[in-house]
Amino acid sequence: MDKALERIKELDREIRTLNGIEALLGWDHHVYMPERGVHQRSEQTAYIASLSHQKVTNPEFGDLLDKLGASAENPLGSKSLSDDDRRLVRAVYRDFHQQTRVPGSLVEEFARVTSIAQSVWTEARKKSDFSLFRPHLEKIVDLNLQLADHLGYTAHPYDALVDQYEPEITTAQIATVFRQLREALVPLVRDIKAAKQVDTSFLRQPYPVELQEQFGRAVLDAIGFDSQRARLDRSVHPFTTTIGVDDVRITTRYLADLVTSSLFGIVHEAGHAFYELGFAEGFRGTRLADACSLGIHESMSRFWENVIGRGRAFWSHFYPQFKETFPDQLSGVDIEAFYKAINRVEPSLIRVEADEVTYSLHIILRFELERMLIGKELKVKDLPHAWHEQSRDLLGIVPDGDASGVLQDIHWSGGSIGYFPTYALGNVYGLQFTAKLREQIPDLDTKVRHGEFAPIKAWLDTNVHAHGRSRTPQELCQQITGNPMSAEPFVNYLKTKYRDIYDL
Amino acid sequence: MDKALERIKELDREIRTLNGIEALLGWDHHVYMPERGVHQRSEQTAYIASLSHQKVTNPEFGDLLDKLGASAENPLGSKSLSDDDRRLVRAVYRDFHQQTRVPGSLVEEFARVTSIAQSVWTEARKKSDFSLFRPHLEKIVDLNLQLADHLGYTAHPYDALVDQYEPEITTAQIATVFRQLREALVPLVRDIKAAKQVDTSFLRQPYPVELQEQFGRAVLDAIGFDSQRARLDRSVHPFTTTIGVDDVRITTRYLADLVTSSLFGIVHEAGHAFYELGFAEGFRGTRLADACSLGIHESMSRFWENVIGRGRAFWSHFYPQFKETFPDQLSGVDIEAFYKAINRVEPSLIRVEADEVTYSLHIILRFELERMLIGKELKVKDLPHAWHEQSRDLLGIVPDGDASGVLQDIHWSGGSIGYFPTYALGNVYGLQFTAKLREQIPDLDTKVRHGEFAPIKAWLDTNVHAHGRSRTPQELCQQITGNPMSAEPFVNYLKTKYRDIYDL
Repeated sequence: MDKALERIKELDREIRTLNGIEALLGWDHHVYMPERGVHQRSEQTAYIASLSHQKVTNPEFGDLLDKLGASAENPLGSKSLSDDDRRLVRAVYRDFHQQTRVPGSLVEEFARVTSIAQSVWTEARKKSDFSLFRPHLEKIVDLNLQLADHLGYTAHPYDALVDQYEPEITTAQIATVFRQLREALVPLVRDIKAAKQVDTSFLRQPYPVELQEQFGRAVLDAIGFDSQRARLDRSVHPFTTTIGVDDVRITTRYLADLVTSSLFGIVHEAGHAFYELGFAEGFRGTRLADACSLGIHESMSRFWENVIGRGRAFWSHFYPQFKETFPDQLSGVDIEAFYKAINRVEPSLIRVEADEVTYSLHIILRFELERMLIGKELKVKDLPHAWHEQSRDLLGIVPDGDASGVLQDIHWSGGSIGYFPTYALGNVYGLQFTAKLREQIPDLDTKVRHGEFAPIKAWLDTNVHAHGRSRTPQELCQQITGNPMSAEPFVNYLKTKYRDIYDL
Repeated sequence: MDKALERIKELDREIRTLNGIEALLGWDHHVYMPERGVHQRSEQTAYIASLSHQKVTNPEFGDLLDKLGASAENPLGSKSLSDDDRRLVRAVYRDFHQQTRVPGSLVEEFARVTSIAQSVWTEARKKSDFSLFRPHLEKIVDLNLQLADHLGYTAHPYDALVDQYEPEITTAQIATVFRQLREALVPLVRDIKAAKQVDTSFLRQPYPVELQEQFGRAVLDAIGFDSQRARLDRSVHPFTTTIGVDDVRITTRYLADLVTSSLFGIVHEAGHAFYELGFAEGFRGTRLADACSLGIHESMSRFWENVIGRGRAFWSHFYPQFKETFPDQLSGVDIEAFYKAINRVEPSLIRVEADEVTYSLHIILRFELERMLIGKELKVKDLPHAWHEQSRDLLGIVPDGDASGVLQDIHWSGGSIGYFPTYALGNVYGLQFTAKLREQIPDLDTKVRHGEFAPIKAWLDTNVHAHGRSRTPQELCQQITGNPMSAEPFVNYLKTKYRDIYDL
């Protein structure tokens, strides 16, 4: 038994090594690679990805899992193992069976179809013409239905799809939480629209990029971003990537005439980086040194971006320095006006530009449509119409074309269905965790006002980061909060924060 | 036969992919990696290096070489193959036999001994105490003797060692060329020392690093460094690395109070990069898309750095722009004074700081000592004394301690004996090629004065770069110049240039 476990750790070490190499190839591709290096880079990445796939699906894992007593009924394996070792066995069981259940022919078909679909989508979005993309999306929905059949599910095929990103969550659980959200947020947004609007014009003016970067780096330093283990660079689309347990990289982009994009982007990615840098020492080299789920990952980035970064206490600490950096731009703007501006709520068509309140409504829209597509209650050809309906119901506005509606996101063209819900689940988990954090650090806001971020990071390290992939999202939620997933803390947070800002 | 050749190209493609990945891991390590990423990076690099070694020594190559009729007597294989295919066969034959002749146990012993020797060397150099390093160097010499035996040689064991870096050259050939050099350079240096010295003080003053970089990039642009296929970054030790046929990267370091270090460093590395970017299209994906030898590589970097970069014509073009960039630093310094300063000759103890004339003398010193060590005419314990003797004879000065003498270079601690000569051979080849280039482009200096570098690069592409590894250094030299290797053009170049500068 011990030998089988050691062998699993040995195989995992190799897989993690390959994961890190693949991450570096990707990071460099988006950050520093000379343009024409792209062809050879694709070859290099494909080579490592294929090697890594071979290693993950190595049939030896099947034998080792048998030896360790793991089965569909008992994925944790033998009770004689330690708790953490059983959790490792469970993760291996999950990955091995998820990967081996899907036939190679389907994986290849996915690659073939999405490679074409992505370029068609780019073109279709440019022309704002869904009809071009439609036949490709039909194939993608069909492939996802086949995928769901191979992966297996009990209640709804969408369960199998969402489980890829958010392990062991069901469509029904998401639907319950999203219903709570919808019922609270739609009227809140309506009330905000009727209230006096806040001025944000001073955010949109020339903010020299070098100064944005300088301030962003000062914030990173202050919140505990460790430059011996992490770095910040620029890329067209911001991301976080993990090259090693002590080497995590974030990127941002600077818009010369909108200061908030890089500012909150950096804090958001730092939240992801803190998570990736916080896995327990004991998990190093194994697949437990990885995120619990995309939703939990997003809970960390959104916590730092919104709860901390868009909070009054944060700016009470940083606003003097920020104003010193941009004295002309912020002349006559007091902290209260600034705080309101960075928290302005306004229903808009584009998800990635949405504020903290309406963002989840964009996600609910996508969830409803995906669930219906996969449940065969909606046809791809009827998608633009359904999008309009949902948009009107949720946001009170409708797209003026496919580009600002059904064609705005890249996810479907890449083959991903079931991914979107994780964004809103991040808000939900995040505020559940925050409620507990506030209970245990009652003077949280005072600490933030004084620039003391270490206790927050320490709490997250202990309660969230360290556990890595050893818990399922629902186990982690229960363990931290004593409760199952619930939208209530997030809803209460939004109501309190925005009733104050909009004087409702 | 066609199938065997296709299979070789397929295997080569995989090896080249791995080479590129390994290069990226190394580049990132020295350029952007956060400090604490080092442990995992070592694992990643070792993983790819070991995989790549497996691929190069794949026994299938042995069978394929048999099928293609390659043997020790006929490494080019069957005459029914095309010329380039036969050259590929020869390169595969060479690598496969070189790698498989050396037993794994010796490779491991080298790794074990040098890993310790490198840290001991660092410490010994710090303390300027050769006695600490001596037992390790004794082991390294012994391992190199074993290595030479395994690799095989006819006349001198040093032949086998130098052949690793400069294929098919002999100790006797090097000795002949170095004798010519020595006989010409020692008196030239003596005459220069007796002449009126040039002022270089204005080179050593504060030169803002950002402006150094800006000017360096302008020079790169002007000489044809293609930013779609190459990039420049900073690192502690400058280097050039090839991540793909369309992705070559150079680095430099900026010294805030010495402008020449980054300036000529950039031009030097650009010469290496031009070579790596210039291999014939038809060689892509095979091992022929690689350098002919280290000496030829160095001929290109030194051509750009010294022949072009330290030439009057080059500064006739760039000096106005340079002076505009640094008006205070160069106030009152005319182009003639500047030209003389960047070409000042002065015997010094440290190789890496040596000028164009004395540099080769530093190399000859090391060659003589290495040849005697490997020929068992000199014991490691007598090395510091022998170093002093040679230094006095060649440079007219002696080290004031081991740190500025026998301990100054990292090469031996890393296990490399036979590497040094390639540096001076670079000068020799470079000026042989230059003589031909001047024959074929008689108005070369006029072109350079007008900033027209494209014809030079085109000539080098056609005559040097494109051939990659398809020729041996001696074949290439013969093909380009119609003559075997000879020190004469280099000696003539130095005499003409420095008699003018020092008014001899």
